[in-house]
Amino acid sequence: MKDIALVAFDRFTDVDLFLMWDILGRNNTDWRVRILGAQPVLHSAHGLTIPTHGPLVDANHADAVLFSSGKEGVPAALAHPDFLPSFDLDPERQLVRSICGGVSILERLGLLPERRATTHPDARKGLQALGLDVLNQPLVCHRNVATAGGCLASVYPTGWLVESMFDADKRRETLLPVLPAGQREIYEDLIEFRLRQGREQTSGSIKINNACGNLLP
Amino acid sequence: MKDIALVAFDRFTDVDLFLMWDILGRNNTDWRVRILGAQPVLHSAHGLTIPTHGPLVDANHADAVLFSSGKEGVPAALAHPDFLPSFDLDPERQLVRSICGGVSILERLGLLPERRATTHPDARKGLQALGLDVLNQPLVCHRNVATAGGCLASVYPTGWLVESMFDADKRRETLLPVLPAGQREIYEDLIEFRLRQGREQTSGSIKINNACGNLLP
Repeated sequence: MKDIALVAFDRFTDVDLFLMWDILGRNNTDWRVRILGAQPVLHSAHGLTIPTHGPLVDANHADAVLFSSGKEGVPAALAHPDFLPSFDLDPERQLVRSICGGVSILERLGLLPERRATTHPDARKGLQALGLDVLNQPLVCHRNVATAGGCLASVYPTGWLVESMFDADKRRETLLPVLPAGQREIYEDLIEFRLRQGREQTSGSIKINNACGNLLP
Repeated sequence: MKDIALVAFDRFTDVDLFLMWDILGRNNTDWRVRILGAQPVLHSAHGLTIPTHGPLVDANHADAVLFSSGKEGVPAALAHPDFLPSFDLDPERQLVRSICGGVSILERLGLLPERRATTHPDARKGLQALGLDVLNQPLVCHRNVATAGGCLASVYPTGWLVESMFDADKRRETLLPVLPAGQREIYEDLIEFRLRQGREQTSGSIKINNACGNLLP
């Protein structure tokens, strides 16, 4: 059984944590998903108080580590002296993903050697100021590390994660329960296009995004 | 300031509550959004414990009442003798909306006189067994009452709600922060198409969905 860690902190963006929590939480045979935080309870950006399931260091043993976001939450977490030192991640053996502003954590952990990523449109300038090439697309991935931007974009990296750990059938099975009624084809096309975009870009003359390598056949 | 009530109960489907909570919670000048429940704390289907902000009866004074869902949560809520009697809703002065299985609450409250609705694909048969015409589309609305199906479909009735209370600009402003990076046009087209679908169906020879009347100019 795979072990998936969702990393959160005080003032996390509600939907960015809860979307992946719910999509992944419907399956308890292929993986176990847990919310990790520095405290036993966390407070969301909109004021919900939720429990955590383990300390941040548990992320180091997970098969996949998904960082949530937070306009105020990410800078506050990065400013805490214990936060970054909790992590000793290895993108050779772990899948790592950020949504929206969580990309700044990946950057600080040295997980973006390509210096190319995406984030929430409102956070673009902050990321560019760090010297990153910020692409205007919902999913950017390089080998085992993916960044995503825009809350509803969570379906793309979550799909990427499941397809990387298992296969396309498991990805479709995982995302199907959350797709709008009567729009399965539209959304599956959107998702598959995004996951394949990296491969097409890589094979083109301009290597924009050396992406999603583990999705290649 | 408008008052929006999100009705929840134990074993609510996490994302169905949290998506509308987050999308609507980003605005605290045009409306106030609160989670109402029969208990001070509720447990989600996937085991999160969250606080509520008021009792169920507060829904009766709200401008908009949004029912969440829950495969086990909705039947359990309906079986509780105090649940349905808490509500005295008036669709003439209130906007009412359900997502996925929450439609059963609307049916029990007599809010679906047209006997036409939508829900999560997995809940279709149960709703058909009640004698409802269940359409295979993410949003079905009749005057001030809307039903939606499939977790990510939340953007449609949430957009419908905001556009009904304010206008299309406020709806776009409200949904923009959650749209995937680089896909604003795709998602806005999807949302606008869905909100207009009712009008087009109404004007056609087959009056499938006398819908979204308050969105008409």
